[in-house]
Amino acid sequence: MKKAVVLLSGGLDSATTLYYARDRGLRCFCLIFDYGQRHRKEILRAKAIAKRASCEWQVVKIALPWKGSALLDKDARIPQAANWQAGKRENLIPPTYVPARNIIFLSFALSYAEVMGASAIYIGANAIDYSGYPDCRPEFYQAFIKAAELGTKSGVEGKGMSILTPLIQKTKAQIIRLGVKLGVPYELTWSCYKGGKNPCAECDSCGFREKGFREAGLSDPLSRKL
Amino acid sequence: MKKAVVLLSGGLDSATTLYYARDRGLRCFCLIFDYGQRHRKEILRAKAIAKRASCEWQVVKIALPWKGSALLDKDARIPQAANWQAGKRENLIPPTYVPARNIIFLSFALSYAEVMGASAIYIGANAIDYSGYPDCRPEFYQAFIKAAELGTKSGVEGKGMSILTPLIQKTKAQIIRLGVKLGVPYELTWSCYKGGKNPCAECDSCGFREKGFREAGLSDPLSRKL
Repeated sequence: MKKAVVLLSGGLDSATTLYYARDRGLRCFCLIFDYGQRHRKEILRAKAIAKRASCEWQVVKIALPWKGSALLDKDARIPQAANWQAGKRENLIPPTYVPARNIIFLSFALSYAEVMGASAIYIGANAIDYSGYPDCRPEFYQAFIKAAELGTKSGVEGKGMSILTPLIQKTKAQIIRLGVKLGVPYELTWSCYKGGKNPCAECDSCGFREKGFREAGLSDPLSRKL
Repeated sequence: MKKAVVLLSGGLDSATTLYYARDRGLRCFCLIFDYGQRHRKEILRAKAIAKRASCEWQVVKIALPWKGSALLDKDARIPQAANWQAGKRENLIPPTYVPARNIIFLSFALSYAEVMGASAIYIGANAIDYSGYPDCRPEFYQAFIKAAELGTKSGVEGKGMSILTPLIQKTKAQIIRLGVKLGVPYELTWSCYKGGKNPCAECDSCGFREKGFREAGLSDPLSRKL
């Protein structure tokens, strides 16, 4: 059974990616990060999803001494979806950008994959219904895998390591339809940038989720709970 | 005054790199990692070197839940220099290799550089008198900077970020001669893979250090203390 490392944030995209990789017959090792995000809810949800999928998981705890992002700074204002949309038109990267976040996450995934003997890393990055983060774009992943091949033991030994982004060109609605087919427990996922009892329904991330379920013609199990 | 992030391990190479960058008129921000290495001595030495150089520094604490390296596993045997030399002839990567370590460190340096507005990252990697780690080779750094340009806000905005490895093609003796000119406090540096009161004089890293000082025709201040 081939092994894969799956980056799991507790959100909709990464949960779908996990079920996608599992469906391909891979033994999945989930990697969850505790990096000082605004709330711990997404970490708890990520663990719950890994358990539901009967996959092994590890939490990497990182104490980042700098902020530099609204997602790391509890005092910073999270932009509303409407404001972000205005920014997108101007090609702005929003304040929720975390400097080099996916590069950091992928580096740990590489390390974990080498240690576990996994030959693939799955990440639920998406370049369609996304917040304009540069580390969600296909060209970044293509460049990163080259660095990984040159900078790791498994790469030098020619064992082959791939970074797979199965959702990168899908709309949120397409992701949700795929996930429903695969049995993703969307009721366990958490998308809201805030960690309240219920999703705020105002932030960028809530906006994409709502639009996705609406366009897929499905109702969000999190909204049904309200 | 231009800013640079310098990766500082407490060893001879990174200390020399810091003094090199400082000598070029850069305001240096040192980045020190507390990642579960076998001993804390190198972290203490790194802090002492940053202070001596009057530079700002930050410690990133990482709780890595997997081992996969003799440098992270207190029960694993550290190979002696003589054994490692035999491995080098067979192009083996030694058991002190830490999976994806420099990729992880560089990713954090990128994040720190973006937050501080630094335009350069200095790393004391060396591909001559080194342990055969793939992430110490020039081709890895060239590939990594491409990924960084595509995956970060500063890269996308064209602000320019460079990763500089001024020691990469120098012998240990050349590094030491350069460092002595720059006033590097070698008595504060620590190279030994073990964290004893004095260097073990047997491990790979002690071997390179001893050879370097001998070939430079200088005496090691750490040995003088013995």
